[in-house]
Amino acid sequence: MAGVDGGIMFTADKLRGWTQEVFQKIGVSRDDAALLTDSLIEANLRGVDTHGITRMLCVYVERIRKGVMSAKSNLVVVREKASTALIDCNNSIGQVGAACAMRMAIEKARQTGVAFTAVTHSNHYGMAAYWAMAALPHGMIGFSSTNAPAAVAPTGGCTAMFGTNPFAIAIPAGRELPVVLDLATTVVARGRIVLHAKQDKPLEPGWAFDGRGIPTTDAHTAMKGLLAPIGGYKGYGIMLAVDFLCGVLTGSNYGIHFPGFLADNMIDPTDVGSVFAAVNVESFMDLPEFTAAIDKALQEIKTSTRAEGVKRIYVPGEIEFDMKAERLAKGIPIPEQVVKDFIALGRELAIPFPEA
Amino acid sequence: MAGVDGGIMFTADKLRGWTQEVFQKIGVSRDDAALLTDSLIEANLRGVDTHGITRMLCVYVERIRKGVMSAKSNLVVVREKASTALIDCNNSIGQVGAACAMRMAIEKARQTGVAFTAVTHSNHYGMAAYWAMAALPHGMIGFSSTNAPAAVAPTGGCTAMFGTNPFAIAIPAGRELPVVLDLATTVVARGRIVLHAKQDKPLEPGWAFDGRGIPTTDAHTAMKGLLAPIGGYKGYGIMLAVDFLCGVLTGSNYGIHFPGFLADNMIDPTDVGSVFAAVNVESFMDLPEFTAAIDKALQEIKTSTRAEGVKRIYVPGEIEFDMKAERLAKGIPIPEQVVKDFIALGRELAIPFPEA
Repeated sequence: MAGVDGGIMFTADKLRGWTQEVFQKIGVSRDDAALLTDSLIEANLRGVDTHGITRMLCVYVERIRKGVMSAKSNLVVVREKASTALIDCNNSIGQVGAACAMRMAIEKARQTGVAFTAVTHSNHYGMAAYWAMAALPHGMIGFSSTNAPAAVAPTGGCTAMFGTNPFAIAIPAGRELPVVLDLATTVVARGRIVLHAKQDKPLEPGWAFDGRGIPTTDAHTAMKGLLAPIGGYKGYGIMLAVDFLCGVLTGSNYGIHFPGFLADNMIDPTDVGSVFAAVNVESFMDLPEFTAAIDKALQEIKTSTRAEGVKRIYVPGEIEFDMKAERLAKGIPIPEQVVKDFIALGRELAIPFPEA
Repeated sequence: MAGVDGGIMFTADKLRGWTQEVFQKIGVSRDDAALLTDSLIEANLRGVDTHGITRMLCVYVERIRKGVMSAKSNLVVVREKASTALIDCNNSIGQVGAACAMRMAIEKARQTGVAFTAVTHSNHYGMAAYWAMAALPHGMIGFSSTNAPAAVAPTGGCTAMFGTNPFAIAIPAGRELPVVLDLATTVVARGRIVLHAKQDKPLEPGWAFDGRGIPTTDAHTAMKGLLAPIGGYKGYGIMLAVDFLCGVLTGSNYGIHFPGFLADNMIDPTDVGSVFAAVNVESFMDLPEFTAAIDKALQEIKTSTRAEGVKRIYVPGEIEFDMKAERLAKGIPIPEQVVKDFIALGRELAIPFPEA
């Protein structure tokens, strides 16, 4: 999730305008293109370049152009109760389904106090935090989780059966920035292993296994092996629960049946399942009282005694908010190779990629 | 959470009868005593002796007799919506508040699809899994979480600000045993550190920190230090979210304000906050279809290729179900010292502890 070092700086506005035009050109509606673009640019602004246009734009475009993912949205609510909804996305863009599910969760939570919604037959939905954070302006706590292609074995096994299965929780604050927790349930992302392999650096213990399920600190061995879940068997349990909720409960793909959903799969519809929840704070406590209490709790953590050599104690989401402020001011760095790809794509679609 | 090695074997029925009488003798109503006893004996049966009568009975009794925890229940629903409820437990026994909150969650989820309830001014509620599992007979997915006294520092800090803040998720299956995930958000429980210190054995890396927040593998140093969260900063984020939901949102104690809730605090009411949720499977998929799909997913995991030297791949809760079958057949082992404590307590209350 770390930001990309180096690269050419572009303003968020320039990237936003161009990205939106690209999506519209390949058949995405104006509204859907705006939504999809915002989710990707927001990821870049927060420094989560893995979920920004940096890594996702060309992949999404290719998937749409090859017909693996539909440009046109076709969302159908197949089951609905006062506090739940299941939306069949019929292979629409993941962000379009997610936005609908989160909007329904917020509307329902306003009436009933809490809501839990889900999408099936969907696609990669971008950064989990984006959906959890959608609850914040409504005085609600937001939650989202999704399954993903298998990269982790069950404890004791050596077949990849679970994705990095991330989840995000957003909690509103008052004067303080909101708490935004967004984590993959693996110790490190595959990208970290790739980086260590490129630099011939050993991994830290506990990051990965070889193909036979034996722990390894050799990055090259780990590349052909398996990622480790957080907390060993505990993380395995969390991943399994996420997969059963997002995949099995929604009637989507899960476990070994989950095909890749990015550049690794340009053939089959992905059939991702994702879940969303909103808790209306006012159902438990008046909002001003709650946000003041959260402010106090955050202050207590941030000003608590630091370990030797530590300059600052961060709370979840704080690094990303700092990054957003910096990137809004200084621009978003796009690596040179990616800029070349964008220029080529822009030529092909007759939508020139803007100058830096 | 590991079972106690050795000890004298007693049938669950004998322990149950005696425990219930003890609680009634010190002023707990017949129904509340039955409920409280069941939650403790069920923990013992599942091998979670840390949450069974082994560790909890004498502590609960002392807390009630000293007036730190009320024998009589006084639950008041202070806020309620179609899918939420906040219950003020007024220092009632934790299990009594939890049972009410989980019952309300199940009833509400039957109407609206999902429900999220919470208790405030409560006490230690036993094993989190007990409450999540209450949803299973209703064809629902259950969830529970609670905060706890501080034992973990925020990442980069060295002041204990978070408890082991456990959560549990239970998912119904068909022919297979249900999935029951119940985990503390620390890498190991404090009990493991204590055991290693007693045996002068080094800890595994990543288990604990010294008092200055520096990682340590020395068990004696760790005893005066801090537990490590699962997945480093990721587990810190999860603990914080649990504490903010269970503690802050419910108006209960949280973070550094949380006094001990067992033998470590015989003075102040604990003021624990806990949350509960139920998701009605039928709101998303017909129950028979869902349980069949869960069976298939579980089978795929359990029969997947095993790592070298591994005899069996377990799914969450399976070890505890195996243990329950064994202990129902062979009895529950109670360590000799604990048996002595029970005999003494029995004499004092004129309720003789049964022969093995």
